[in-house]
Amino acid sequence: MSPTLFDIHAAATRLIGTAHRTPVLTCTSLDALAGATLFFKCENFQKGGAYKFRGALNAVRQLTDEQSARGVVTHSSGNHATCLALAARLRGIPAYIVVPRNAPLIKQRAIAAYGGQLTLCEPTLAARQAEADRIQRETGATFIHPYNNPAVIAGQATVALELLEQAPQLDALVAPVSGGGLLSGLCLATHSQAPGVEVWGAEPALADDAFRSLREGKLLSNTDTTTIADGLRASLSQRTFDIIREHVRGIVTVTEEQIISAMRLLWERMKLVVEPSGVVPLAAVLAALEKFRGKRVGIVLTGGNVDLDKLPWQ
Amino acid sequence: MSPTLFDIHAAATRLIGTAHRTPVLTCTSLDALAGATLFFKCENFQKGGAYKFRGALNAVRQLTDEQSARGVVTHSSGNHATCLALAARLRGIPAYIVVPRNAPLIKQRAIAAYGGQLTLCEPTLAARQAEADRIQRETGATFIHPYNNPAVIAGQATVALELLEQAPQLDALVAPVSGGGLLSGLCLATHSQAPGVEVWGAEPALADDAFRSLREGKLLSNTDTTTIADGLRASLSQRTFDIIREHVRGIVTVTEEQIISAMRLLWERMKLVVEPSGVVPLAAVLAALEKFRGKRVGIVLTGGNVDLDKLPWQ
Repeated sequence: MSPTLFDIHAAATRLIGTAHRTPVLTCTSLDALAGATLFFKCENFQKGGAYKFRGALNAVRQLTDEQSARGVVTHSSGNHATCLALAARLRGIPAYIVVPRNAPLIKQRAIAAYGGQLTLCEPTLAARQAEADRIQRETGATFIHPYNNPAVIAGQATVALELLEQAPQLDALVAPVSGGGLLSGLCLATHSQAPGVEVWGAEPALADDAFRSLREGKLLSNTDTTTIADGLRASLSQRTFDIIREHVRGIVTVTEEQIISAMRLLWERMKLVVEPSGVVPLAAVLAALEKFRGKRVGIVLTGGNVDLDKLPWQ
Repeated sequence: MSPTLFDIHAAATRLIGTAHRTPVLTCTSLDALAGATLFFKCENFQKGGAYKFRGALNAVRQLTDEQSARGVVTHSSGNHATCLALAARLRGIPAYIVVPRNAPLIKQRAIAAYGGQLTLCEPTLAARQAEADRIQRETGATFIHPYNNPAVIAGQATVALELLEQAPQLDALVAPVSGGGLLSGLCLATHSQAPGVEVWGAEPALADDAFRSLREGKLLSNTDTTTIADGLRASLSQRTFDIIREHVRGIVTVTEEQIISAMRLLWERMKLVVEPSGVVPLAAVLAALEKFRGKRVGIVLTGGNVDLDKLPWQ
C-alpha cells in the first residue's frame, strides 16, 4: 500500500516539535549559473544530519507501546542507521543496527553516538539480512527498512509539504534517488498537493538503476557501488519503483565530476556543508540546463554527513 | 563622532532589500557542550560572504551622486575589499582596491570577480596607504576605511539590531574583534537598544591587541600576524577603542587549537562553512564556560570565505 496524502499529513503532525522544519535558502550566483530560480531545502540541517530522520521518526512513533518496548532493528551503515538510532533514543527504546564489518569507523561511531547498538556482520546483503532476521527473532524488535516501508516513505514525503509552502509556485522539484524512499514520497505528496509541479529524480551515472528501470519498464538494480555519492548506491524496490514510474517526470544522471563540482559550488557559494549524495540534484540541474531554464526549481539538499578529513577535491 | 542609534537604524533602512537579513540557527549538541543556549547569526550567508558587506554598502549608499561617480578606494585583501567591490558594483561605480603583492591569488580573484579594480603594492602598511592616497588624488575616489569610519561602524551595527529581534531576551552577545568595526557597532547598538545585554569580544591570543589595550587602558597594537584567523590580524583604532572601552563587558582570548576545534565543530555539527575568524566567538564561549553558563548567548558567525583547498585540520 502506498501512503496517502492523509498518511503524509499525519506524518507531518508526528514530526512537529521534534524534527526541524528546515529552512529554504537561495543563492543569486547559482541562479545565474542555472538560468533558473533555485530554492534549496536544507535537510543537511535536519536532526541526525539528513532527511532520513523524518522517515525513521514517523516509523518509530507509529509503533504501539508493546512493539516499541522491544525496539527496532535495521541493517545500514548510512544516514538511515544514525537517524533510526536517534529516533529510537528519543522514544527511549533500543535500536539494533547491523553494520557490515568494513563500514567506515566514523559511521560506526556516529551510530553509536546516537545510542545505536551495533552488530557487525560480513559485508554482503545476505549476511546483513540474516543478522537482522536473527535479532528480530531473538528480541522481537520491529524491522524498519530504509525505504521499502510506507511509514518511512510518508515521513520523507513531508519534505515536499514544507518545500511547497516555503517556496510557492514551484515549477519543478528535484531530489536524489537511491532506494527511492524520498523520491516516491515526494511524488505522492506533490501529485496530491500540487499536481502541476514536476518531480525529477537525480542519480549518479555510476548507480543509475532508476534511470534504467524507467527506460526498460522493469525493475533493475545496480551492480557497481563505486560512486562517491555513498548514500545513493542502493536500488529501487518494487514498491518505490511503482510509485516513481507513475508520477516522476524523469531521471537525470550525472557524472562523478559533475557531483564533485556541484559539491564545491555549494560549499563555496552557499557556505553549506552538504554530502556528495546531497548535491546530486544541483549537479543534475546544471547538467540538464534546458530542462529547468527559467523555472522555479526546488532542490532537496538531503544531508550533510561527510568525513571532513576526506573531501573529494583533495 | 560615534554613530548614534538613529544612524544605525538609518543604516538598517539603507540595507533593506540589498543585504540579507541572515538567519539565526541553533544547535542542541553545541548548547550541550557550552551549557548555554546559543543563537548563531549566520553572516557567512551574507552577500559577499561576510558581515563586511553591511558597512561597505552603508558607506557607499551615503555618498552623494557627485562623490560616488568618482568611485571608492580602500586597501585590504580581505572581506572588506570584496564587499566594498560588490557594494560599488551595485551602485555602478568603480572600486579601487590596493592589495599587497603577496596576498593569496584566491583573494585577488574574489575581489576581481566582484568587479574591484586591483592595484598591487609592496606588502607594507606604508606602501598600501601611499598607493591608496595616490589613487585618491588621481581619481577623486572616496577612501572607505575597513573599520575606522562611522558609516562602516553603523552598517556593522545592524547585525545587533537583527539578532536582538531574532533571538529575544539574550543575556550576552559575542563577536570577534580585529579593527573593532563590528564590535564597536554592536556595543553602540546594544547599549542603546538593549542595555541589559552584555557584549563580549573574542580574539585570538596571537592577535590580542584589544585584550591588552583594555587591560592597560591605552591603545596597543599587534605585532604578530600569524594567527590562522586571517581576518583578525588588524589592530583597534582610537575611535573603535574608545567605543569598546566604554561598553564592552570583556574580551576573551583563544588559542589557535581552540579556533581550529571550534571551526571543526561548526562544520560537523551545524553543517556551516565558517572561516577561522568567524568561529572565534564560539571558541571563546567554549574556552570560558563559566562566563556564559546557563545564559542565552548570541554568537556572530562573521563570514564563510575560506580556501577549501587549505583546511586547518588537514
